[in-house]
Amino acid sequence: MAKEKKAPRPKAQTPKGFRDYFGAEVTERSDMLRAIAGVYHRYGFEALESSAVETVEALGKFLPDVDRPNEGVFAWQDEDESWMALRYDLTAPLARVYAQHRNDLPLPYRRFAMGPVWRNEKPGPGRFRQFYQCDADTVGAASVAADAEICAMLSDTLEVVGIPRGDYLVRVNNRKVLNGVLEAMGVADEGQQAAVLRTIDKFDKVGEAGVRELLGKGRLDASGAYIDGVGLSDAQAEPVLAFLTSKGADAAATVANLRAAIGSSQIGAEGVDELEEIGALLAAQGYGSDRIEIDPSVVRGLGYYTGPVFEAELTFEILDEKGRKRQFGSVAGGGRYDDLVKRFTGQAVPATGVSIGVDRLLAALREKGRIGSTVQGPVVVTVMDKARMADYQAIVSELRNNGIRAEVYLGNPKNFGNQLKYADKRNSPVAIIEGGDEKERGVVQIKDLVLGAKLAQDATLEEWKERPSQYEVPRSEMIAKVREILSQWQSQPSSSNEVPEGTRE
Amino acid sequence: MAKEKKAPRPKAQTPKGFRDYFGAEVTERSDMLRAIAGVYHRYGFEALESSAVETVEALGKFLPDVDRPNEGVFAWQDEDESWMALRYDLTAPLARVYAQHRNDLPLPYRRFAMGPVWRNEKPGPGRFRQFYQCDADTVGAASVAADAEICAMLSDTLEVVGIPRGDYLVRVNNRKVLNGVLEAMGVADEGQQAAVLRTIDKFDKVGEAGVRELLGKGRLDASGAYIDGVGLSDAQAEPVLAFLTSKGADAAATVANLRAAIGSSQIGAEGVDELEEIGALLAAQGYGSDRIEIDPSVVRGLGYYTGPVFEAELTFEILDEKGRKRQFGSVAGGGRYDDLVKRFTGQAVPATGVSIGVDRLLAALREKGRIGSTVQGPVVVTVMDKARMADYQAIVSELRNNGIRAEVYLGNPKNFGNQLKYADKRNSPVAIIEGGDEKERGVVQIKDLVLGAKLAQDATLEEWKERPSQYEVPRSEMIAKVREILSQWQSQPSSSNEVPEGTRE
Repeated sequence: MAKEKKAPRPKAQTPKGFRDYFGAEVTERSDMLRAIAGVYHRYGFEALESSAVETVEALGKFLPDVDRPNEGVFAWQDEDESWMALRYDLTAPLARVYAQHRNDLPLPYRRFAMGPVWRNEKPGPGRFRQFYQCDADTVGAASVAADAEICAMLSDTLEVVGIPRGDYLVRVNNRKVLNGVLEAMGVADEGQQAAVLRTIDKFDKVGEAGVRELLGKGRLDASGAYIDGVGLSDAQAEPVLAFLTSKGADAAATVANLRAAIGSSQIGAEGVDELEEIGALLAAQGYGSDRIEIDPSVVRGLGYYTGPVFEAELTFEILDEKGRKRQFGSVAGGGRYDDLVKRFTGQAVPATGVSIGVDRLLAALREKGRIGSTVQGPVVVTVMDKARMADYQAIVSELRNNGIRAEVYLGNPKNFGNQLKYADKRNSPVAIIEGGDEKERGVVQIKDLVLGAKLAQDATLEEWKERPSQYEVPRSEMIAKVREILSQWQSQPSSSNEVPEGTRE
Repeated sequence: MAKEKKAPRPKAQTPKGFRDYFGAEVTERSDMLRAIAGVYHRYGFEALESSAVETVEALGKFLPDVDRPNEGVFAWQDEDESWMALRYDLTAPLARVYAQHRNDLPLPYRRFAMGPVWRNEKPGPGRFRQFYQCDADTVGAASVAADAEICAMLSDTLEVVGIPRGDYLVRVNNRKVLNGVLEAMGVADEGQQAAVLRTIDKFDKVGEAGVRELLGKGRLDASGAYIDGVGLSDAQAEPVLAFLTSKGADAAATVANLRAAIGSSQIGAEGVDELEEIGALLAAQGYGSDRIEIDPSVVRGLGYYTGPVFEAELTFEILDEKGRKRQFGSVAGGGRYDDLVKRFTGQAVPATGVSIGVDRLLAALREKGRIGSTVQGPVVVTVMDKARMADYQAIVSELRNNGIRAEVYLGNPKNFGNQLKYADKRNSPVAIIEGGDEKERGVVQIKDLVLGAKLAQDATLEEWKERPSQYEVPRSEMIAKVREILSQWQSQPSSSNEVPEGTRE
């Protein structure tokens, strides 16, 4: 018996946790990234596209001390045995790029970056192992003016992509204030500090009373499990609670509350001063608390960042999976981190930045109906006679040269019904028909497919008769008639049938 | 002695063969991709962004029959031991996507895709392991109208991105004609066919006489080495030479020459008919031989494709590294390939497409001076008094709100010279200065840095006095004066200082 065996057919699917993006999913994201890049550019930020692949060494965190450093990142060995990995965010690459090119880059260096990142994590529903990030960072500026600028830019960005003022809030907190609070509490032990940090991270979920319990003796979970507490006395826990709930009626009141919470801590006072200065700088540019506010209840990222921390939240309500109302929540976050570059150079370099969750922001715009309505397809030129393909190509070419998105049907033209089904699948607004008879008489038939579909759905017989959805026009009037029909069914600009500015011939 | 040792600092560099892209390198490419997407969209093509990571199985070619399938691709194992890899082109993913989603996709399916691909190859000068591709393909259309459409679209695309008519040529050939020629020669043995294919692949380099030698007895290389020939008789070799040199004064002459070359071969006649039909379809749309022509000397890709083959060449001359004139050469190629999807589904699906070498096209535009001239930086607002940062933020905010790209200096402001050096490094056209004195008098100083640099370089003392490069204007006239200066030094749109349309507030 021969040893030959037929290779089984490969499965046509992405690896687990990966997906493809089609049509409007791609163009809506690219339009959004372009709009964001416009704002970043106006603020003086420069584009950077770093390599998708980094040495594992440069990524840090994931050193190859095990056989395969595949925790969190996708990694493999090069021919010379060195480990490479796909970047898992855009911040670690920035630190590497800045350390590598610092002699050629301006100081401070403002850069933005947008692109996919990869996480070697367990995929789940809506949780993918490749997704987009869109970051802006300023490296080498110690002044909180850099932080204020990022907040202002974040606010502008949200409005430019379509979130109106009032539907979002940029909230600012400061890690140094928390450090001051820890000092005021007399919690100097690092382990205990970390436990306090972990606890306040749950503030969003368990609220003031919950944090109070967790800082003290512990707490009975909703599931009935008992969660051990940090073991602080009520008096010791007080400054943290004061910090988390210090938001006052206005910025001045908040600042006064914070000063009370930090007691005599010097680092705490520095943090409060920074928040005050950020507030003043933003006020000078006209950003009031309707757009950006100091809010000490922002706890996300307090463990990671070293100074100011920002978060952008969308404040409108949506219905969750269970039909309950809830706020849309966070779409961007960032803050000051002053020691990433030091890993490479030994020198601390101040840095601050923000990362926008592009996919969440797109989801928010879809939720609000700002994007994602039915996208119009191209005008379809049908093929009545295969031998006259040149005529149809001439028609489609004329449409395109007039800035109208159009295509000729390229499948088997035998069955005309299939051509209309195709136009339907393509969401075409218009079909053009030129049979032998039309050709002879110098006319074309123009089918208004949107109206046709509407009539098929709702119309009475009278309406049907009154509003024909097919028109015969002289060949020379084709463009004008198509334009007239398209102008009625125009959808939003990004998905419209007209070719974008600057790409017309 | 404690076992503790300090980890060495990581090296700040990309893995071998990878690089970063800065500023205009990123925006010029993204502007070009957007312009290309505009053309593809107008032709009815839909965007597709497939996952960067594929199963090795789906990529084909590189099956995991060795321990690590790292030949040509970057691959690694998932937790369940299955192999994944970075895509090495955009065609293999298209085949997978089409096979996976064929029930939901229109038929024919026109799609475009743009993005990085990765090759696990030895890097070299100018040869990177990550680079961009930009493809358009039509899946499911057997008609050569689909091929003609791709050629027309390629021609439009080159003109839209800035290659004027006359500076490029799309050349079309057909693999079936070559098959006919092989039939006419009586070369039926697959090994010998492959040898002929390899030989004509050298036509570009060794010319007609060289190919004649290589098809026969062999040839003495320029290096003095003797290259064995295929061993065909002169008479047998004749049809191939006739094929390669069959380009006539016009399309009709070329077609007549081709018909002679293929003798009575049926597949050859089919190929010639297809070329003739493509020519007729393009002529009907007004594409003459100044844009697209039948050229049987196009040999690149003839081994890979199954029908029509296209190549876009830039015909203008550049100087090579040694200062010799040569044509810029190929920037895009494609053709018909009818069996990629079959791997997955068992069913042959006709497909045709083109891939544009984005980086080569960018290099060509740089060569022609169309992009890459010095890119203007933002207006820089200098900081004269750290305590008045709010004033400077207000100035920069006003500039931005008027659509002017601007930033405030965020480094240590102590040394004013450093601020001007920074503005110089940023290529700023204008610096704004507002000291305490100016503030009091309600004015600002506006430095025209472009003029300043020009004067510093060329001006006589008289000119220097006559044309001051610094102006004092009332604060209320700042925007108008900045605009006036910018309008003189405007560079090309993509790098201009004005914010792109649609991103202004």
